[in-house]
Amino acid sequence: MTVHESHTRIHHTGSRPDIQVPFTRVALTNGESFDRYATEGPGSDPEVGLPRLRQEWVAERADTEEYDGRETQLLDNGRAALRRGAARDEWRGERLRPRRAMPGRNVTQMRYAKQGEITPEMEFVALREGCDPELVRSEVAAGRAIIPNNVNHPESEPMIIGRRFLVKVNANIGNSAVTSSIAEEVDKLTWAVTWGADTVMDLSTGDDIHTTREWIIRNSPVPIGTVPIYQALEKVDGEADKLTWEVFRDTVIEQCEQGVDYMTIHAGVLLRYVPMTAHRVTGIVSRGGSIMAGWCLAHHQENFLYTHFDELCEIFAAYDVAFSLGDGLRPGSTADANDEAQLSELRTLAELTQRAWAHDVQVMVEGPGHVPLNLVEENVVLQQDWCHGAPFYTLGPLVTDIAPGYDHITSAIGAATIAMHGTAMLCYVTPKEHLGLPNRDDVKTGVITYKLSAHAADVAKGHPHARDWDDALSKARFEFRWRDQFALSLDPHTAEAFHDETLPAENAKTAHFCSMCGPKFCSMRISQDVRARFGSDLDPEVGMKEKSAEFLEMGASVYVEPQR
Amino acid sequence: MTVHESHTRIHHTGSRPDIQVPFTRVALTNGESFDRYATEGPGSDPEVGLPRLRQEWVAERADTEEYDGRETQLLDNGRAALRRGAARDEWRGERLRPRRAMPGRNVTQMRYAKQGEITPEMEFVALREGCDPELVRSEVAAGRAIIPNNVNHPESEPMIIGRRFLVKVNANIGNSAVTSSIAEEVDKLTWAVTWGADTVMDLSTGDDIHTTREWIIRNSPVPIGTVPIYQALEKVDGEADKLTWEVFRDTVIEQCEQGVDYMTIHAGVLLRYVPMTAHRVTGIVSRGGSIMAGWCLAHHQENFLYTHFDELCEIFAAYDVAFSLGDGLRPGSTADANDEAQLSELRTLAELTQRAWAHDVQVMVEGPGHVPLNLVEENVVLQQDWCHGAPFYTLGPLVTDIAPGYDHITSAIGAATIAMHGTAMLCYVTPKEHLGLPNRDDVKTGVITYKLSAHAADVAKGHPHARDWDDALSKARFEFRWRDQFALSLDPHTAEAFHDETLPAENAKTAHFCSMCGPKFCSMRISQDVRARFGSDLDPEVGMKEKSAEFLEMGASVYVEPQR
Repeated sequence: MTVHESHTRIHHTGSRPDIQVPFTRVALTNGESFDRYATEGPGSDPEVGLPRLRQEWVAERADTEEYDGRETQLLDNGRAALRRGAARDEWRGERLRPRRAMPGRNVTQMRYAKQGEITPEMEFVALREGCDPELVRSEVAAGRAIIPNNVNHPESEPMIIGRRFLVKVNANIGNSAVTSSIAEEVDKLTWAVTWGADTVMDLSTGDDIHTTREWIIRNSPVPIGTVPIYQALEKVDGEADKLTWEVFRDTVIEQCEQGVDYMTIHAGVLLRYVPMTAHRVTGIVSRGGSIMAGWCLAHHQENFLYTHFDELCEIFAAYDVAFSLGDGLRPGSTADANDEAQLSELRTLAELTQRAWAHDVQVMVEGPGHVPLNLVEENVVLQQDWCHGAPFYTLGPLVTDIAPGYDHITSAIGAATIAMHGTAMLCYVTPKEHLGLPNRDDVKTGVITYKLSAHAADVAKGHPHARDWDDALSKARFEFRWRDQFALSLDPHTAEAFHDETLPAENAKTAHFCSMCGPKFCSMRISQDVRARFGSDLDPEVGMKEKSAEFLEMGASVYVEPQR
Repeated sequence: MTVHESHTRIHHTGSRPDIQVPFTRVALTNGESFDRYATEGPGSDPEVGLPRLRQEWVAERADTEEYDGRETQLLDNGRAALRRGAARDEWRGERLRPRRAMPGRNVTQMRYAKQGEITPEMEFVALREGCDPELVRSEVAAGRAIIPNNVNHPESEPMIIGRRFLVKVNANIGNSAVTSSIAEEVDKLTWAVTWGADTVMDLSTGDDIHTTREWIIRNSPVPIGTVPIYQALEKVDGEADKLTWEVFRDTVIEQCEQGVDYMTIHAGVLLRYVPMTAHRVTGIVSRGGSIMAGWCLAHHQENFLYTHFDELCEIFAAYDVAFSLGDGLRPGSTADANDEAQLSELRTLAELTQRAWAHDVQVMVEGPGHVPLNLVEENVVLQQDWCHGAPFYTLGPLVTDIAPGYDHITSAIGAATIAMHGTAMLCYVTPKEHLGLPNRDDVKTGVITYKLSAHAADVAKGHPHARDWDDALSKARFEFRWRDQFALSLDPHTAEAFHDETLPAENAKTAHFCSMCGPKFCSMRISQDVRARFGSDLDPEVGMKEKSAEFLEMGASVYVEPQR
């Protein structure tokens, strides 16, 4: 699915014909073209789902087996389904039997990478990123990057999260007890991926959690993440005290069998850290964190996610589910940033990272939240140091608390900054943050805001070829190729609509000005005229020589004092 | 004018009763209140204009005199007025005779400051900023801050631009040959100030430039900036070659007499720098820069703004107009950032800063533009070093070129970052940047986006009390005082409207949840419940002690390796 008439889909073929990596080719009016990273998938018939791209790759490794799987229960869809005696809007497409590792096998990309194997998934990723497949393999082997793809989500197009690769963006969707329907959530998924979301988290906490997730996974070309504690809590009537490892484990297996690619696990919220939040301005603002803190205090026991962490690793290794180690004690206000509670938990997440790696399970680590701009860099420096380079996945951070309604922007500032310093994936924030569930427009605004932040970070990091996109658009702008400027932009429709508000006529699309300055004051037109009239005077060599002489005269220091 | 029912206007009185500094008092539902920096003025009757707050202060210094002033000419309103034989929509309010320094006097705030005098303007500013008036005086005297207020703009409420003070935001308005009317521009002015613009630039380039400016200044409680070369160019039929120092000087005096508070002067675009732009991706993108570059090449002479700079200083000193030294060679794309052309011009702006200071004329220096995030800091470091701390005033910068339609956001990222490192004022960018003239909604979005960026920088700089605002809002959020959260936010209407989209009922304004998570999954509610239930277990002293023992055990190093 493409978003503009100048966009077509092309494919780069890998070493085998079924490795077909999609790109969006932007055809320019000057005969050139520009290829952009793209996801093939969005736009499936929701009732059918997507083709199963990876099914054969998984099967041919011959290290997994199909099995009957856990029987779906009414409670999987919440107490409303239990009361009704039936689930709602059951998935109507084909159902595959779940698959898991054969006994004694470990089917994670990390295991393959450590064994020196370049899987089709790794090759696919390398073609998408324009890098050497060996870089992909070695980064995954070292734990510095992850390729989240559950063997039960064969519809997903492999993608990689790691600081050596393009910065990725996650979009959160999902219902709550107050609002939303399954069809709306599937639509939000497709919409988010259309605008460039690299992964999607289904954070549903309302009715029909199991069924909503089934529809989402079957229609998702990107990895799906979840926070299984939400569903587990539903199964115990919403009372955190009643949670048990057994209920949680059963929920995790249910989700592994459906094909969830990564799960947020709040195993770092330790009993002894909870009191550290007591004097905070905003206490605990992570849902999972507050649930686990409540459980720990109620039972006066250590967090069962921490005590059972190795069992979780064994389950994840059987499906290749990646950990997203949740920062349940992240700051919810700039006042609470980088405090003892947050950093203590991060230290525990570092410990858990090593434990997961011992099982060859892929891991990323979640980060804040709300952080003043001067403290943003410290977050990623400490995380990368303590967690030995495991990918960092941050929510913003928001750099001020005073702008509800504009928190996609307050957080984009922190997001671009933290990504420049090494964060591998950014979780988007929409304009509705703190105020309500995002609707379709909010999802689009959130994704585009985060794509521009991620790209700004790629450019700032000097990522190979990242700035080519900026240069192609700027060149189109300078040459008054308005159609190309629109086609190359992150949101062609909005760019064109804004231009057309004041100059809707077709000939304005090739005019050497716009309504900002009008024809006489268009600097770029004047600048072009100057070039045309004074071409010979504009020999940059002459300028260079003069300047160079002047520099020498002034002492050849960049920090020389200005002349007085 | 206030923007929310919980907002009232209060005043702090200075050492004399006519120093009445306005604040917006936000009344909170818990009986507390929060006072915010505010501008009294917006909301005048456009046909009458604002009261002349500073008239008496200027008069009692007895160093200025009224005089007849230059006679307005038809051409001042452009060739359309000339053709019509009449101006349009003449200013209908009272006209004062212009005022200027008596012969031999210099009436700039910098001169007063250097002489050790704390003017009412300085005291007003100190009360607004909550600082010692001596800090204001000494920073103005050192050139590290400016108080732009032309003696002919007595309606303006003094404000200060300097890195030791709150980061300020400028909003650009003004018509073009293609669009807009006088009434629309006055409305945009009022709208921009209502949402927090600290200064406004009238960048009109279309018809009725003189008259539009008169309406704007008479109704503006904030300093007004212009780029006089735009009007001068209109007077020579839009042909840059025909510009002369005489036409320009006459235009500057016309604007000094009207009350323009600061003017952008592109005196740093030197003949020898122009060739340095020849191989750029986007050449010269400043209108003023491209006009002056064209003039220099056409005449093979040095920029007349540079050669006549001392005469300009003398004129500015007679009215207390501040220089905004324009960066005519600023980069228009990330590819061109921090290049030879840009930095050569900056060096010349540093020289001109010193020349202006020799006349005790106030100066700020303009900066880019489009700059990759990793190169942003260098811009302000070099400017502050070379220009001896003269205030830096930057346009964004935009940190990527790929998001037309969202350039308020691409630039807010650069703006917050550059302000954190010392930029004193940020020129807003609206969603229409590169695409068309901003309308009323765009002006609001631009101002709010930049207010949040400026505030984020204030917080990051540790500006005294800056974070109090964040803390007040976060506390309201944590305590479910929804009405207070709205009232404290930069845009109360939008925050409330977003909340009400899903939970419009009145009782939802005190509910302990919102539609994001619903009641069961509200982390803040759970966190509060935890506090209520386990208060005694949450003694932070206990946590501290345990943690502290653990730290010692681990070697008491912040960078200790995680446990294996």
